[in-house]
Amino acid sequence: MLYQTKNPHGGDIYAEPIELDFSANTNPFGTPQGILDAVQASLRHMHRYPDPYCRQLVREICKFEQVPRQYILCGNGAAELIYTYCEAVKPRCALELAPTFSEYALGLRRMGCRVTRHVLKQSTGFEVGEDVLDAIYSVKPDVVFLCNPNNPTGRTVNPQLMKKILKVCRTENIRLFVDECFLDFTELGESVKPYLAETPQLMILKAFTKSYGMAGIRLGYCMSADSTVLHQMAEAVQPWNVSSLAQAAGIAALKEQKFLQDTKALVGGQRQYLRQELEKLGFWVCPAEANFLLFSGPEFLQERLKEKKIAIRNCDNYEGLCPGWYRIAVRLPEENKRLVEEISRIMHKE
Amino acid sequence: MLYQTKNPHGGDIYAEPIELDFSANTNPFGTPQGILDAVQASLRHMHRYPDPYCRQLVREICKFEQVPRQYILCGNGAAELIYTYCEAVKPRCALELAPTFSEYALGLRRMGCRVTRHVLKQSTGFEVGEDVLDAIYSVKPDVVFLCNPNNPTGRTVNPQLMKKILKVCRTENIRLFVDECFLDFTELGESVKPYLAETPQLMILKAFTKSYGMAGIRLGYCMSADSTVLHQMAEAVQPWNVSSLAQAAGIAALKEQKFLQDTKALVGGQRQYLRQELEKLGFWVCPAEANFLLFSGPEFLQERLKEKKIAIRNCDNYEGLCPGWYRIAVRLPEENKRLVEEISRIMHKE
Repeated sequence: MLYQTKNPHGGDIYAEPIELDFSANTNPFGTPQGILDAVQASLRHMHRYPDPYCRQLVREICKFEQVPRQYILCGNGAAELIYTYCEAVKPRCALELAPTFSEYALGLRRMGCRVTRHVLKQSTGFEVGEDVLDAIYSVKPDVVFLCNPNNPTGRTVNPQLMKKILKVCRTENIRLFVDECFLDFTELGESVKPYLAETPQLMILKAFTKSYGMAGIRLGYCMSADSTVLHQMAEAVQPWNVSSLAQAAGIAALKEQKFLQDTKALVGGQRQYLRQELEKLGFWVCPAEANFLLFSGPEFLQERLKEKKIAIRNCDNYEGLCPGWYRIAVRLPEENKRLVEEISRIMHKE
Repeated sequence: MLYQTKNPHGGDIYAEPIELDFSANTNPFGTPQGILDAVQASLRHMHRYPDPYCRQLVREICKFEQVPRQYILCGNGAAELIYTYCEAVKPRCALELAPTFSEYALGLRRMGCRVTRHVLKQSTGFEVGEDVLDAIYSVKPDVVFLCNPNNPTGRTVNPQLMKKILKVCRTENIRLFVDECFLDFTELGESVKPYLAETPQLMILKAFTKSYGMAGIRLGYCMSADSTVLHQMAEAVQPWNVSSLAQAAGIAALKEQKFLQDTKALVGGQRQYLRQELEKLGFWVCPAEANFLLFSGPEFLQERLKEKKIAIRNCDNYEGLCPGWYRIAVRLPEENKRLVEEISRIMHKE
């Protein structure tokens, strides 16, 4: 017996013999050497408590993001920041997309919040449409959660629509939480960072986890002009939530912009390849812009691939989806090819 | 501006030029090589999400502690477990010692809990006496927090008294939280682990942080026969709270029992040395049994030592203490000697 809510996410490859993990959306290149070197160098200080204020890391993020230092708060992975945000804001009513990342609703319900969902439709490619504005007006939530690009659909929010959402949130004084953890993998996605100063209702979530291949070391940060909420978030966690190793890794990661460009180039082409191949097999594939693809296939697919030691993300536990929906990460060319071959073999046997 | 409650603890050596840190009670030997090697070996999997259930680590702790697997829950440092325990139990009224580690009250008050204190007296060497039983009977709290040995006094609870406390908590059905994070450094301190099965009210907190020189990587665990509370605690945190590097470090740490014995031997002698030298200087020193010493000295001491790039823990913010109280960690012989010399020099100048 192990104490943890049944983990509904991908990437838990520790119970089964998995050789190829398409279930977690992390960087296909793994961790850049520069980050590994920085963590290794930090080991000699492992006996010390970490800097409880992440001083140097915050300074570097501030330079990198070109936002004032008081806009930034670091956390033990982006997931911790979702929980502490919900704890600080204590919303009674929240609006989120469906399907979307499940941790928002978990963090919200922990605080007794009612979660209303704006359901996205396969018929419109799970795109967030103008009707989200109607949903905001009619629900009048305390906070709107947007994931851009959305997980598991991989769709970005149209920048013009995002501007309208920001305007509504400002005029109606509704909080807006925008999760940009996968934005680095997209070509067309636009950050809402330029609107931070004029929109104190806005909170942006960023992770090092996915972009820089650092899921194991846990590091995320968020940005907002609302210093009261950031302060309340900091008070909601223990003093040493970010390890000294993660702080060293984060400082090194911000120097890896070439790595990020290479990743984006690889992911763009390989996403296209995977989508085409899956469509050839007759599956409906969501027109994603991120480093993962949502598709609809036969219900036996996950189990059959597991027999081949390949993990994909079963999306049947996402609100708004059902059995037969899967998400796969875009990985290296030879790995993607192997996945396509195995799926093809499974389908032709049926 | 940096978002964090003003950190009231020792070990924050990142804002001042500190060469010798006596303010944090970590292992004077630093991190054993075996742990450093294990973390380094784990770096190649840093791009993967950590095991959300800490499966292998829990198996190893279970073997090491000789308790059933369902008694164990790991956390991002012992401090996180204090917060999640308070969140899971949601006590309305708690009893703790004064002075004691400040995070219990912070975790409790975050949940709106009233904190009552059993004040320890200098006249009895800050020992926890039989009158703690009267306090429990009269306050009738939902939970009692004990730190054994207590931080910052370094005093252990007499095992016969602890048995009585356990009995009261069982018969009155009062929860008992026993923090044994510094117990590895004592010779006479006894764990309450043997009482876990018969006392479902009991929760024991353990940290890798101090014993194994791992404060920077964040890892703690707790043990209880109450699986409902452990389950609620697991639900109160994000799925990947313990990094993969910390999990690897913990598994390696449990093999370092020789290191722990060597530490205990060193600390025992050096504590004696420090106590004698401080008493020679005319300070009142608490008869501690742990790897740190509480003493009363002049109010200018911390500032003067900071000028020498030496940090000690100012204890004026502990409930039950006032300016002039300090805590120092027991460190390596040459470091302790240097501290004594510097304090001596400061005192003779006055």
